[in-house]
Amino acid sequence: MKSDVEISQEAKMAPITTVTNQLGIDPDDLEQYGKFKTKVNFDPTASHQDGKLILVTSINPTAAGEGKTTVTIGLGDAFKELHKNVVLALREPSLGPVMGMKGGATGGGYAQVVPMEDINLHFTGDFDALTEAHNTLAALIDNHIQHGNQLNIDPRQIVWKRVLDVNDRELRQVVIGLGGRTSGVPRQDGFDITVASELMAILCLATSLQDLKKRISKILIGYTYDRQPVYVSDLHVEGALTLLLKDAVKPNLVQTLEQTPAFIHGGPFANIAHGCNSILATKAALAYGDYAITEAGFGSDLGAEKFMDIVTPRLNKTPDCVVVVATVRALKLNGGADKKELNVENLAALKKGVVNLKRHVEGMQQYGKPVIVAINKFATDSDDELSYLSNYVKNTLKVTGEIINSWAQGGQGGLDLAKKVIAACDTPADFHRLYDENAGVLEKMQAIVTRIYGGANVELSRKAKNQLKRIEKMGYDHLPVCMAKTQYSFTDNAKQLGAPENFTIHVSDLQLKLGAGFIVALTGKILTMPGLPSHPAALDMDIDENGRITGLF
Amino acid sequence: MKSDVEISQEAKMAPITTVTNQLGIDPDDLEQYGKFKTKVNFDPTASHQDGKLILVTSINPTAAGEGKTTVTIGLGDAFKELHKNVVLALREPSLGPVMGMKGGATGGGYAQVVPMEDINLHFTGDFDALTEAHNTLAALIDNHIQHGNQLNIDPRQIVWKRVLDVNDRELRQVVIGLGGRTSGVPRQDGFDITVASELMAILCLATSLQDLKKRISKILIGYTYDRQPVYVSDLHVEGALTLLLKDAVKPNLVQTLEQTPAFIHGGPFANIAHGCNSILATKAALAYGDYAITEAGFGSDLGAEKFMDIVTPRLNKTPDCVVVVATVRALKLNGGADKKELNVENLAALKKGVVNLKRHVEGMQQYGKPVIVAINKFATDSDDELSYLSNYVKNTLKVTGEIINSWAQGGQGGLDLAKKVIAACDTPADFHRLYDENAGVLEKMQAIVTRIYGGANVELSRKAKNQLKRIEKMGYDHLPVCMAKTQYSFTDNAKQLGAPENFTIHVSDLQLKLGAGFIVALTGKILTMPGLPSHPAALDMDIDENGRITGLF
Repeated sequence: MKSDVEISQEAKMAPITTVTNQLGIDPDDLEQYGKFKTKVNFDPTASHQDGKLILVTSINPTAAGEGKTTVTIGLGDAFKELHKNVVLALREPSLGPVMGMKGGATGGGYAQVVPMEDINLHFTGDFDALTEAHNTLAALIDNHIQHGNQLNIDPRQIVWKRVLDVNDRELRQVVIGLGGRTSGVPRQDGFDITVASELMAILCLATSLQDLKKRISKILIGYTYDRQPVYVSDLHVEGALTLLLKDAVKPNLVQTLEQTPAFIHGGPFANIAHGCNSILATKAALAYGDYAITEAGFGSDLGAEKFMDIVTPRLNKTPDCVVVVATVRALKLNGGADKKELNVENLAALKKGVVNLKRHVEGMQQYGKPVIVAINKFATDSDDELSYLSNYVKNTLKVTGEIINSWAQGGQGGLDLAKKVIAACDTPADFHRLYDENAGVLEKMQAIVTRIYGGANVELSRKAKNQLKRIEKMGYDHLPVCMAKTQYSFTDNAKQLGAPENFTIHVSDLQLKLGAGFIVALTGKILTMPGLPSHPAALDMDIDENGRITGLF
Repeated sequence: MKSDVEISQEAKMAPITTVTNQLGIDPDDLEQYGKFKTKVNFDPTASHQDGKLILVTSINPTAAGEGKTTVTIGLGDAFKELHKNVVLALREPSLGPVMGMKGGATGGGYAQVVPMEDINLHFTGDFDALTEAHNTLAALIDNHIQHGNQLNIDPRQIVWKRVLDVNDRELRQVVIGLGGRTSGVPRQDGFDITVASELMAILCLATSLQDLKKRISKILIGYTYDRQPVYVSDLHVEGALTLLLKDAVKPNLVQTLEQTPAFIHGGPFANIAHGCNSILATKAALAYGDYAITEAGFGSDLGAEKFMDIVTPRLNKTPDCVVVVATVRALKLNGGADKKELNVENLAALKKGVVNLKRHVEGMQQYGKPVIVAINKFATDSDDELSYLSNYVKNTLKVTGEIINSWAQGGQGGLDLAKKVIAACDTPADFHRLYDENAGVLEKMQAIVTRIYGGANVELSRKAKNQLKRIEKMGYDHLPVCMAKTQYSFTDNAKQLGAPENFTIHVSDLQLKLGAGFIVALTGKILTMPGLPSHPAALDMDIDENGRITGLF
């Protein structure tokens, strides 16, 4: 069997200009990175007719993921085979996990975006630019303190940490500024992974270069000794930081193995951030395609909820259809199967685990738009398992469901699903918001926990309560909430699989992200800097003298 | 008067393919980054005739620099105006100092490489890739310790620090791995600026992708508890690290304002590293040009000495002519003038300061090739100052000297100098090595200090002495030495200007860089992570809604 990188390297790619010509993009609006990648100078204010929007989400995943990106790409290729003008909008992979255990994040098998080896590594440098801009701001804050601290910033109350796009647990908690008078002020600090940077969220929510700068200027960086907020605008560095992101803010366009156009831009994780590609990329996909297919990270409790509640008001567009990806493997895991035994038929576990799918489907149905289940076929699924699951979707959940086999068959493997999605997009339906935008922080969290997670309560730690008071006093309590929660469970405990009932979500801290325009609620033991496993993927990667790459999945 | 970025943005650039076509580069060997930047898949083993090589260096600079890059570019443009087939090979700017006080590093006025705003910011992502690869290795080392430490690495003896391309004094000395059992092993660490990374030196000394991987595998990362060396090859991650640098290792090609081709690739600082652009870029310039002009960082005591003694044996080519850039301003500073008064005529200080130029010229003359002085004219230089200096060069130093005014006049301002350099390149001369490659570490340092710096002695700290013993025991004492020293003085004290006599160089530490293949000797109080000034350049940078940039000099 061929590896993903082998399939990618054997692919016959069209020059990216062939793809952009088909979309009618002016060659003057391109900034190519080699022959197969390009940035697009997309003007969202230019008049255009929006296409239909399809959101792909999933159940709670296994550690290996459920192939949501593979399904999204395969679905796009199927649309193309049905002669539909379709454009994908996806997230960029984060290098940290690529070197860790996840491998690439560019689909798999015969449903990939290419060139996968470039997209999975530095791509067009967007994440590197974000890392650089983030750490430049951190250095400017400490430098301000070092040179007299005119703003009276309290080094104990700086909320702007540093970032790297590396899985490096060693940097989670550090002490910096050691070495005496000329080497800064000693203080506690920490590094997050770049995808958790507020700048990543800002890049993904910005609607123009000017909006980007405006949002950057609003970032809360810390507090003064007398507890007054300090913003980037107080340091006067929003211009320099925007300058560092002038290219990163432009959406990237590549193609799938079947030459379907795919914007890939921005990539906050959905467990520690809002989990969706950039608004500019989705707008571009809607402008150039009759159909735009986008995905939101992890399960529907995370990425999709945030897409619905945080992204759509800023996108000015809601999905016409929601696709929930399920796999036999993950449902068996949710039903209690051992994670090492997921390749073995286990109908009992599957029957127990389907409640997880049920809750995801019902959660998404609350938004009012058609919900379809995509069963992503793995070679190890038995016929009995697949048929049980198909029947469950049809007879118990009473929603449309189709098996998709794009990993093995590309677009051809997704034709049935694509036809159902196209039909659903033509079904008139009203979008219902989950909560009133003007509701308070607690009320919003309560709506998410009870109506999406299926839980009972939200409990705030003492620290979170104090933070909430501060937020209310500052007048920011009407911002949307971005839940930071484990992707493995509806609860804040990664071990509680299936569809737990009557649980409480524990909020340990609330963080004001004023540039992004939301409040992050940290729940359970969520980490904003992952670690590497005992055998990192990096150990198996290689490149030979002819540039042939191995070990990049 | 127009700013550098204004001149750059008004420039009429040729598509980079026009430049590559003139050089006869196969379009299939290009990987374009937009319309005006490209990476070149250059094969150094393909047969070609090497052009003549010109090395540009300088006297000890002021904090603002002596316009060495401006002279190099202006000289190249003058060659072009004289209908010579010339190609430049320059270093990439480091973002940290761009945000600090230095502004851009792409020439100035009418002698610039363009687009300067891209080259000064992320360019083609080479430095970002180096940062990512460096920190990935750091994370893999700590991760190995976290997961059982099979190699028995002593966390107190890890010599591989972390890096960022940010001037951030706050990170010079840090404690990492705090937070308990799941967040790593607490230990002391520090961050260097990316240009000080051994990977930067390796990238600049590698002659192919395979040589890059071989060098990476040799990197010394630390020692075991029983004091045995641990290399990257012991961790088996040279493949992954090479993969992360697969594009960074390819030289970048841009053009000057006058459309002279310029390779810009790699950029170690000359005070803390070896200070020269990549060997692959210089080889490419030699292959495509009848004349290749390259520059080495800071004064001839730093970059040029390292070019001669470290680079040329690996380049298999020595310079046909050496150009020493001098300015009236820097010589006045070297003669005792106040650094705030350099715009004021001061013949007395100039007459005292010319000894600095004398020592640089005599140092370079020891290598046997013709040495020419380029007097880089500033608008504030008086006629009397310029004429005194010209006469001093001609009558006292008895070498060829010419005034160059490319900042104001581009290539036209460098015609006289260019003619002299062309003539010098045709003068037969033998290259003399400064030291025997097989000499010991102390002997090599002694040769550099006495014959290039004009000092008397080298003194090793206790730590450096112990390190030397360890190096000798390991059998690496025949490697070349890369001196890390202040750029402002021949001595290791930045305040000792002019041409001090009878001084001692104090070596505080010796660092084995086995991937780069040299030993770094740290002298005086050299810092490998700069800080930002009280008013960083970042505060004055901006970009408006039309992408117009200000404040980037």
